Amino acid sequence: MRLILAAGTTRTAAIDGISAAGAEPSLLAHTPGADAEILAYGRPVRAPVVPVSPSGCPTPAAATRAAREQLGFDLTVIDAGLSKPTAAPTVSVGAAPGGDVREPEPVPAAAAALESARRFGRALPHPEVAIAETIPGGTTTALGVLRALGEDASVSSSLPENPLGLKERVVERGLAASGLEVGEAAGEPARAIRRMGDPVLAVVAGFVSGAVETGTALTLAGGTQMVAVAALVRHGGEESPLALETTSYVAADPAVDLASAAAALDLDVTATDPGFSADHPAAAPYLDGEAKEGVGMGWAMTRAAEADALPAVRDRLATVYDRLVGAAEVADGS
Amino acid sequence: MRLILAAGTTRTAAIDGISAAGAEPSLLAHTPGADAEILAYGRPVRAPVVPVSPSGCPTPAAATRAAREQLGFDLTVIDAGLSKPTAAPTVSVGAAPGGDVREPEPVPAAAAALESARRFGRALPHPEVAIAETIPGGTTTALGVLRALGEDASVSSSLPENPLGLKERVVERGLAASGLEVGEAAGEPARAIRRMGDPVLAVVAGFVSGAVETGTALTLAGGTQMVAVAALVRHGGEESPLALETTSYVAADPAVDLASAAAALDLDVTATDPGFSADHPAAAPYLDGEAKEGVGMGWAMTRAAEADALPAVRDRLATVYDRLVGAAEVADGS
Repeated sequence: MRLILAAGTTRTAAIDGISAAGAEPSLLAHTPGADAEILAYGRPVRAPVVPVSPSGCPTPAAATRAAREQLGFDLTVIDAGLSKPTAAPTVSVGAAPGGDVREPEPVPAAAAALESARRFGRALPHPEVAIAETIPGGTTTALGVLRALGEDASVSSSLPENPLGLKERVVERGLAASGLEVGEAAGEPARAIRRMGDPVLAVVAGFVSGAVETGTALTLAGGTQMVAVAALVRHGGEESPLALETTSYVAADPAVDLASAAAALDLDVTATDPGFSADHPAAAPYLDGEAKEGVGMGWAMTRAAEADALPAVRDRLATVYDRLVGAAEVADGS
Repeated sequence: MRLILAAGTTRTAAIDGISAAGAEPSLLAHTPGADAEILAYGRPVRAPVVPVSPSGCPTPAAATRAAREQLGFDLTVIDAGLSKPTAAPTVSVGAAPGGDVREPEPVPAAAAALESARRFGRALPHPEVAIAETIPGGTTTALGVLRALGEDASVSSSLPENPLGLKERVVERGLAASGLEVGEAAGEPARAIRRMGDPVLAVVAGFVSGAVETGTALTLAGGTQMVAVAALVRHGGEESPLALETTSYVAADPAVDLASAAAALDLDVTATDPGFSADHPAAAPYLDGEAKEGVGMGWAMTRAAEADALPAVRDRLATVYDRLVGAAEVADGS
């Protein structure tokens, strides 16, 4: 059992109100590297920050790490456009940090990153892998790509109040800057990403295509960003069945219609309820609609449920959280 | 239990007759990436080659991988100056491929790589790690650094006939080009590496310093290149005890006086006999003095011996070898 994590950045995250994946905007660029370190080592190592939302909700990486400590799955991190150094070992596929989606070409090297990640997906010898993402601002670029491809699906948010109106306006500006009509990049995944996406979408879509080509059993470990990946892969001509595993929080998001997306893109969708309760600060924010998914959390909870280990993983989350809080206090000097 | 592998390159390897870490000179640059992939995945993934010596002896990575499959230790690869992409996840510490030791300054960024690796060593949360190397040509740069520091220790070779005379001449030319007398860089590890070393020496010496500073129990997993690392660390002022674990083949090398090096550098040396016999092509070349050590092999054999698992690891080596031969046949199209 191996989780591949594509970690990258887009300057789209810096748009005011777009992302909750950091306590403040200046720290967002550190979030993907910190998430990778939390999965790899159990706490940030080089990243100077523990990712929390502005309200204090810890990154979903904490939940995925808790599952990893309980279940013991392998991890491979792909540098899908990190802008800060990370202590997590990463595979390089030549991806660079993404620009603002309101620019004409936020991912100039989309085609090369797709192809390089596809080769890596083809070469990886594991019979079964899941692929996850961490990229602040990623649901906005996911929406951008869906619109460029002409797909109706909508996207979730790590904020309790999904700023969907803002995202739609940002995407409209992006389409205008790119000189694209809605649906004009249908059948052209590289063009959709180059004009409206982010480097993580390029790397994950490329990886999935390559892995599926060689018969790897592949699971998309995530929410609506992974729906955008599925759309990219389908528009690239891949017809093999694909599985998507996410949390019940994404499935319950009124902005999201997972059933329609599953039908439109031939996705086998599983949404797992982690069974969180309000009695712990690492879990309670999810009940209020924060975070919802990310860094493979839904897949990890599905694996835990299959192993009858959800209660143990919830207990472990408290341990991981205490460790992260301790690390944050050290980082603050408090 | 975690093995850190520093993988890098030096153009010194291209000097005729210096290195056996590849079937032919044009393939040497792929060896460190292939070694990392063999440890991570069990076979080369992106590297277009299985590293073998000119006579067909497989890389010591095969033995370390066999131990890993049997004992299940963790792995972190540091990019210590790779010149080709690898599918193994790597931690970046800003190291670049090294130049020819006969140039005035083969490692211009030695000080920065030392410092960056030291920070990584300090940050890594594991209580106990071993560090190994893969860098074709690395014993010649190790000799260069030992001479620059004024240390008497000599170096081993992956060739049955150690071309020590050639290495001494290459190092003399390097010292002349660098404007250094023997011993002139004593107490200045960064200067010794910048003028006479390679990027792997910079990364390993920096990592060791940082790890030891924070109380990590550290083992140097290798032969005479790790003696050079110990010398660098001692010349940097570190006085904590250091362990070195290598193979009996290095200890038996008449060119090497491990006992004197251990005494001079306060090293606790363990040399383990893998118990290889002539009945398998993956093991037999070691009996003729080939390969000897590398990619953490001696440390891995020591761990196997401690676990009473040497016979199982030897059996596993045959399996790993068959897989590598299969991969080589695919690469050849044969």
